[in-house]
Amino acid sequence: MCITGGAGFIGSNLADRLHADGVEVVIVDDFRTGRREFVEELLSDPGVSLHEGDVLDRRLLERALDGCDWVLHMQANADVRHGLEHPRRDLEQNTVATAAVLEAMRAARVSKIAFASSGSVYGEPEVFPTPEDAPFPIQTSLYGASKLACEGLIGAYAHGFGFTGLAFRFVSVLGERYTHGHVHDFYRALKRDPTRLRVLGDGRQEKSYLYVGDCIEAMLLAAAQHANRPGELAVYNLGTDETIIVDDSIRVICEHLGVHPELEHSGGRRGWAGDSPLIYLDCTRIRALGWAPTLSIREAILRTLRWLDANPSAVEEEAAVS
Amino acid sequence: MCITGGAGFIGSNLADRLHADGVEVVIVDDFRTGRREFVEELLSDPGVSLHEGDVLDRRLLERALDGCDWVLHMQANADVRHGLEHPRRDLEQNTVATAAVLEAMRAARVSKIAFASSGSVYGEPEVFPTPEDAPFPIQTSLYGASKLACEGLIGAYAHGFGFTGLAFRFVSVLGERYTHGHVHDFYRALKRDPTRLRVLGDGRQEKSYLYVGDCIEAMLLAAAQHANRPGELAVYNLGTDETIIVDDSIRVICEHLGVHPELEHSGGRRGWAGDSPLIYLDCTRIRALGWAPTLSIREAILRTLRWLDANPSAVEEEAAVS
Repeated sequence: MCITGGAGFIGSNLADRLHADGVEVVIVDDFRTGRREFVEELLSDPGVSLHEGDVLDRRLLERALDGCDWVLHMQANADVRHGLEHPRRDLEQNTVATAAVLEAMRAARVSKIAFASSGSVYGEPEVFPTPEDAPFPIQTSLYGASKLACEGLIGAYAHGFGFTGLAFRFVSVLGERYTHGHVHDFYRALKRDPTRLRVLGDGRQEKSYLYVGDCIEAMLLAAAQHANRPGELAVYNLGTDETIIVDDSIRVICEHLGVHPELEHSGGRRGWAGDSPLIYLDCTRIRALGWAPTLSIREAILRTLRWLDANPSAVEEEAAVS
Repeated sequence: MCITGGAGFIGSNLADRLHADGVEVVIVDDFRTGRREFVEELLSDPGVSLHEGDVLDRRLLERALDGCDWVLHMQANADVRHGLEHPRRDLEQNTVATAAVLEAMRAARVSKIAFASSGSVYGEPEVFPTPEDAPFPIQTSLYGASKLACEGLIGAYAHGFGFTGLAFRFVSVLGERYTHGHVHDFYRALKRDPTRLRVLGDGRQEKSYLYVGDCIEAMLLAAAQHANRPGELAVYNLGTDETIIVDDSIRVICEHLGVHPELEHSGGRRGWAGDSPLIYLDCTRIRALGWAPTLSIREAILRTLRWLDANPSAVEEEAAVS
């Protein structure tokens, strides 16, 4: 299996899991956000190879795909919040990049793709929990729009070229190697200044989180189910059956760190333009395959915090990048 | 108002209509599919200007936008059927081009956009007539996927940058200056050989058509309604409350031409991969604004045939291109 973004947060966890199962793993990563330390150990093993570069490098990608049956397409710009500051970034790194992956797959005669989509494609839904066939949404973020565009491309390749397609609409994913997002930002800020914490929005935004290990099990289960269904794009929500408000997730972090900051809310229902005040996905479809998350949101946050404690460089390096 | 693709089928009809209303019209067209003869007369009038080039030419577009309040973004690759032969074309000419239009608008401080989307974004819907908030569809064509991606971008610009957005999901549009699609193809084929006609699919595909004049009235009505609603993308289906099967539309053409060809169906429910066996849109939303089509599907086909009769060059030139 070829994993694009295989040195990233979810991608490298996928790589570990597949390798442990004896699956041959080909990692494509340009290390723009992926990290060498996430795959260094793995790469010393036979059965794991790395093609260093961008998926837009057609030759590199075709070489990487040679002999693969699946592409687990995880590479993406995952910076949801700053889309408006760089309006072309999501288009180029997500939409155009996915089109390039699909064309390289066609050339290399690889026709199975599992895609890391996002619950943000629902924009601000009106139905909760939100099912995969919710009313046709209006997009509210460039990130969500780009992920939706990718799903559309994969659907068209499935229908037109007989590809087998899977799209996973994730809630926010947490766990080992988590290096961006709410929990990371709050942790970093509290490490710097435990007396006060700036919170975007009113802190009442209701979010969903999923543990990366649970996320991966769901993806692999669905991939096994759909391996022999060419011509279809199947879509699965991946999340837990609970939500947590931002202020409560901050509380978990503060308890863990033993700090008591004053919270300074920027106000408003949304943390930023495109931030959804409520994310809560209906995961009946993936649960019907026999999957269930093993960790609650609180447990997933704590697992993440313990990993950040043990890997202070993940926090520092991120600071150096941004 | 700036009309991209203003020398094309729908764009040039829009230009005529707006000019007749005394509105200043700026046409952007690269004449790849637009035609000089559609705008020649108009361009001799004051109050109408042409910027010849592609919307990807940022400078040209910004110059064109100077002083405009609305962009009517009609420029597109409208070749639905051959998407799979040129998998990057819809992405580049529709999705990336629309991203470029939005960025040029932001630079030029123009924030109102009406976009020619398509009923093909519904893929193969399960609800008929299909409303704008139908269950979240799976894409079945690269054309539909690209139009959906454009809608997503406009939604994100509306939400993030306060743009006023309108997306019109058209059924197939017919009328004066119609130069591609079913009716055109059948007319051309029967002019060449009136004894036999090859029909893609089983001829039972059920299609909807809308007269271009009715289409334009609907667009302008919605634009007037939404002119003062920044931050929103509003979506409207545009069609008639009827459908016609492909074989029946062929019958109308044959009667008009006085020919009796033998029909040779290629078979299958779809004419090509991505062809929807049934297109029938719920137009309650646009009708609630007071709009209704003035021509039936049959009348729209006949109006189109009469225009093709009077403009044989439209058929010949198209043949030279394809």
